[in-house]
Amino acid sequence: MPVVVQNIARADRDVIDRLGRAGVATVHEAAGRTGCLASYMRPIYAGAQVAGSAVTISAPPGDNWMVHVAIEQLQPGDILVLAPTSPCDNGYFGDLLATSAMARGCRGLVIDSGVRDIRDLTQMGFPVWSKAISAQGTVKETLGSVNVPVVCAGQAIEAGDVIVADDDGVCVVRRAEAETVLAATEKRLAAEEAKRQRLAAGELGLDIYDMRPRLAEKGLKYV
Amino acid sequence: MPVVVQNIARADRDVIDRLGRAGVATVHEAAGRTGCLASYMRPIYAGAQVAGSAVTISAPPGDNWMVHVAIEQLQPGDILVLAPTSPCDNGYFGDLLATSAMARGCRGLVIDSGVRDIRDLTQMGFPVWSKAISAQGTVKETLGSVNVPVVCAGQAIEAGDVIVADDDGVCVVRRAEAETVLAATEKRLAAEEAKRQRLAAGELGLDIYDMRPRLAEKGLKYV
Amino acid sequence: MPVVVQNIARADRDVIDRLGRAGVATVHEAAGRTGCLASYMRPIYAGAQVAGSAVTISAPPGDNWMVHVAIEQLQPGDILVLAPTSPCDNGYFGDLLATSAMARGCRGLVIDSGVRDIRDLTQMGFPVWSKAISAQGTVKETLGSVNVPVVCAGQAIEAGDVIVADDDGVCVVRRAEAETVLAATEKRLAAEEAKRQRLAAGELGLDIYDMRPRLAEKGLKYV
Amino acid sequence: MPVVVQNIARADRDVIDRLGRAGVATVHEAAGRTGCLASYMRPIYAGAQVAGSAVTISAPPGDNWMVHVAIEQLQPGDILVLAPTSPCDNGYFGDLLATSAMARGCRGLVIDSGVRDIRDLTQMGFPVWSKAISAQGTVKETLGSVNVPVVCAGQAIEAGDVIVADDDGVCVVRRAEAETVLAATEKRLAAEEAKRQRLAAGELGLDIYDMRPRLAEKGLKYV
Amino acid sequence: MPVVVQNIARADRDVIDRLGRAGVATVHEAAGRTGCLASYMRPIYAGAQVAGSAVTISAPPGDNWMVHVAIEQLQPGDILVLAPTSPCDNGYFGDLLATSAMARGCRGLVIDSGVRDIRDLTQMGFPVWSKAISAQGTVKETLGSVNVPVVCAGQAIEAGDVIVADDDGVCVVRRAEAETVLAATEKRLAAEEAKRQRLAAGELGLDIYDMRPRLAEKGLKYV
Amino acid sequence: MPVVVQNIARADRDVIDRLGRAGVATVHEAAGRTGCLASYMRPIYAGAQVAGSAVTISAPPGDNWMVHVAIEQLQPGDILVLAPTSPCDNGYFGDLLATSAMARGCRGLVIDSGVRDIRDLTQMGFPVWSKAISAQGTVKETLGSVNVPVVCAGQAIEAGDVIVADDDGVCVVRRAEAETVLAATEKRLAAEEAKRQRLAAGELGLDIYDMRPRLAEKGLKYV
Repeated sequence: MPVVVQNIARADRDVIDRLGRAGVATVHEAAGRTGCLASYMRPIYAGAQVAGSAVTISAPPGDNWMVHVAIEQLQPGDILVLAPTSPCDNGYFGDLLATSAMARGCRGLVIDSGVRDIRDLTQMGFPVWSKAISAQGTVKETLGSVNVPVVCAGQAIEAGDVIVADDDGVCVVRRAEAETVLAATEKRLAAEEAKRQRLAAGELGLDIYDMRPRLAEKGLKYV
Repeated sequence: MPVVVQNIARADRDVIDRLGRAGVATVHEAAGRTGCLASYMRPIYAGAQVAGSAVTISAPPGDNWMVHVAIEQLQPGDILVLAPTSPCDNGYFGDLLATSAMARGCRGLVIDSGVRDIRDLTQMGFPVWSKAISAQGTVKETLGSVNVPVVCAGQAIEAGDVIVADDDGVCVVRRAEAETVLAATEKRLAAEEAKRQRLAAGELGLDIYDMRPRLAEKGLKYV
Repeated sequence: MPVVVQNIARADRDVIDRLGRAGVATVHEAAGRTGCLASYMRPIYAGAQVAGSAVTISAPPGDNWMVHVAIEQLQPGDILVLAPTSPCDNGYFGDLLATSAMARGCRGLVIDSGVRDIRDLTQMGFPVWSKAISAQGTVKETLGSVNVPVVCAGQAIEAGDVIVADDDGVCVVRRAEAETVLAATEKRLAAEEAKRQRLAAGELGLDIYDMRPRLAEKGLKYV
Repeated sequence: MPVVVQNIARADRDVIDRLGRAGVATVHEAAGRTGCLASYMRPIYAGAQVAGSAVTISAPPGDNWMVHVAIEQLQPGDILVLAPTSPCDNGYFGDLLATSAMARGCRGLVIDSGVRDIRDLTQMGFPVWSKAISAQGTVKETLGSVNVPVVCAGQAIEAGDVIVADDDGVCVVRRAEAETVLAATEKRLAAEEAKRQRLAAGELGLDIYDMRPRLAEKGLKYV
Repeated sequence: MPVVVQNIARADRDVIDRLGRAGVATVHEAAGRTGCLASYMRPIYAGAQVAGSAVTISAPPGDNWMVHVAIEQLQPGDILVLAPTSPCDNGYFGDLLATSAMARGCRGLVIDSGVRDIRDLTQMGFPVWSKAISAQGTVKETLGSVNVPVVCAGQAIEAGDVIVADDDGVCVVRRAEAETVLAATEKRLAAEEAKRQRLAAGELGLDIYDMRPRLAEKGLKYV
Repeated sequence: MPVVVQNIARADRDVIDRLGRAGVATVHEAAGRTGCLASYMRPIYAGAQVAGSAVTISAPPGDNWMVHVAIEQLQPGDILVLAPTSPCDNGYFGDLLATSAMARGCRGLVIDSGVRDIRDLTQMGFPVWSKAISAQGTVKETLGSVNVPVVCAGQAIEAGDVIVADDDGVCVVRRAEAETVLAATEKRLAAEEAKRQRLAAGELGLDIYDMRPRLAEKGLKYV
């Protein structure tokens, strides 16, 4: 059963990059409010904003052997996505693995477990979104799989899906929907800017979105 | 039952501001060690320190409609306080709502749920204390109430109560007790400064507070 | 039973300092992957990296009396380690206690509970690793003990053990093993540098560590 | 500030008993979907179903002194409600206190902390809803208050409010609303029985509640 | 996007029933140690053991409208599987819905949220595995989907997959793999019985599985 | 470093058995309110009450190999105590291992992780106190140690220490203190019975323990 899928399809690079620039909240809304990983997935430092193609890792708890295997499968623009097969907070990944991943063009790591060497990773500019920060080391004894479908922090992710991550967390866009979601994203961005200006000028959302009649109809009372 | 209370009493602005400058830990102690919200309420960026009058929101899980309603009730110096009616970590609030709230003089948000657009909020200088950071969007389908009593992160809060928030978290002071608590707060600040100097000079709390006899009486043994 | 042990053995200062410079992840690995405190122990600000001898405190929940007692036992280079006797997140420690501890040469605090006055502690450069940040105050009514063995965040710690702490968290090295662990640590650091260069140049861990035959033997399939 | 309020108003005994027989879910719905304590509040044994007037206790973490004080305030039909002033899971209450409380007609305990002597309490038929089961003992050193407003497991509760508890958890009904809520409760119970028979016969909620048109209007597609 | 998929494939009924009789632990092992839902999914009463075809529900937090929709899609032998689109512990399901589901031959509910009317469900013999027990009611305002792929308690589940549940929790077997897994399951059951007898007679696993040489080779020391 | 300590000292069997009959709460109090494991350690079925000598296991996350090794070290009257080296909730132990352990006279298992085959273990009368119930299987790849000091659920435990466990949870008594703690335990039991009778007759703890003067001195006000 342990398997490494070597040839995976990826979304168009330009589409990925434009999703990355839009950021998690907008992309998630444009995707019909889908795709957000659990809110416990936090960046190890503030300010990183990336998008890339998922290279997925299914790994046993406390065993990071498959990370080495996955790094060989990376192409420039990819993001590693690691899901342990049961809950774990060990530090699967640190500065040496980041050095290796960066050498292959990897843009970051999303891991439903722990990461370590935070200071080094921050200095290297290698962003990680994780459940935990932990120095606890791991072994290399049990196989897992690479580029198989995983569930990471509550979302099903397949190899080649588009990962978007920033200070708000992480979201996934199905590879096949990337272009559609991008179109909706950019439409949304344009609309937001107009609303921002009206709101900044003191107009109320109640009026801009014409909410008052429906609030009254539902029974809201002002006293 | 869904209701918006429009006219709420607020504490004196100068009293509020002086409580804000004293900060959460001192105000909480001066209030007889009361009022701290749960420790999971964390600021989205370091360094913010504010105080204001609570405009409260009781909202269903995953529904931020009432935030729009509440913004109309804001006066300069207010702080939004949102309590979901059951546990939720969705991102009820982001940069557009913050733009609207700031346009009305709002000083910040305290929310026992999630917030998003962290990078924008940080750049705007709109502070938020929340249980979670999450891009997960919400709907606008079910009514809640504004300026009714709520329980937020373990504390009962009424509209017009004074909210103090800084890097240590959030505390609430009953509106009617704001002046009394301020007096105790400022007395405490004065006393702390003298103690700080003695401690910095190497004197021990054991001696400054004359603890040794009572420790001995209770039975503490030195070996 | 409440007791203060006054004379405790400490590891060699130079050994301690060199362990501190190596950092938590490396020391933990060199110690045979032992000693990491639970991953919920987080620094109150980024960038601190210290090592010191543990002065331990066993304190009741919500009672910080023993911190005052422990401060008298501090020697330059020590780190306070506080374990409540049952789970608690109160703010046992703030700027006044930090002022007192720093006056005696204390290098930091590791506390399986809460801490407050975060802004002040950050400005003072007094690092704390804690389970929580909380302004909730404590009483001084019930005795505990100082310099007795404790369990702090999942690790058994004795007075005089070496505490290493940085952005990755906290680990403990038994006092009697400090020199042995330091030797292994420095050997490891040297080896890591060579590996880092090879990885940065694009070599794979799969090849550097000769993992391919064992992966194949275990049954990993490439498809 | 520590205070014992001796004379508290209580709801009508018959109203309380009928709310108790209806159970938590129905009463909560009849009260407009309000009043449920957090879902972590679980009964120590299955099958208990009670209602009574709240005698509230605000107690420090790890200190059960006020339970003794509160027991003197009990009248037959009351339920003790204990809220620690900060999170705690200690065993504040066991078989001796239950013996004392039962001798005064107490119907149970709701505690946002721990309880012990589970086997004895079960045999005595003294029901408890708690956050934890823990043998960890407490001290008697610090005052708290009795019959003051508390926040227990996320709900504001005042002395004399009606507590309803069963296998589904705990809910509170404001004393002044007890009769109104009872009327709505009994109306609801009557309506439920008719629906149950139709559903048991195979009719669908989609039809009984005429949901199909609104589902279609909202855009639900059948494929 | 909200959709109800009406015709789903199901595994063979006899295969499902035999998987159910084998139980979760054995089926999970036979499936290559895959498929276990998170361990927080607990049965509301002890002793239930079922298997069935998943009818999946993706529902918003605090909104149980889609449960009514899903019940119409049930066939005898099915199990409802509800995954909220963000974390929630509300009581989506109670005795009326259970009455309706049972009338259609439903064997149980697996819900990554809350359930209520525990006493009634127990008396009716309708088993539920849930994250929480909560009386907190829900609304019927926002659409979701039925029989789409969901992630429930950490596992990706598709409509028609086989759900096995007992006192150990819940596991899912892909529909297409049900027969293969059943074959492995029954082989495993046969082998276990022989081992059980040898172990009961005092033989050691160390000898039965011939572990001693490999332990020695790995470096285990007896002192 | 992986080691099996073969000859461990145990406390007197009669002392152990009498501690077991007294139960966790009383023994913990008699031991000076020490020794309770974390309250998340719950029995898999109600009503078990045991005491025994700890045979400790330090095991990697997700690897139960050392359980087989530990079983060989069991003597009649022992209790297995398993602490994973980092947080884990896998099902390390089930009916086959229980069969083997019972064949050697083992009285139960205390495990800071998961257990499975709950129905079988209940029918066999093999009690387990665990953090989780989980069918998730484990591997046999990495060594750990047997009969070394461990930290289990927040308590330091050495091989041969006395474990007491019942419906209230688990506590540990140092082997060397077992007789002293037993003496205090039995004294306490005698005193409790007298108090129980007075409390059942309606006397108040306030009077029996003469609390009124000290409450007044501390400042408690009755209003």
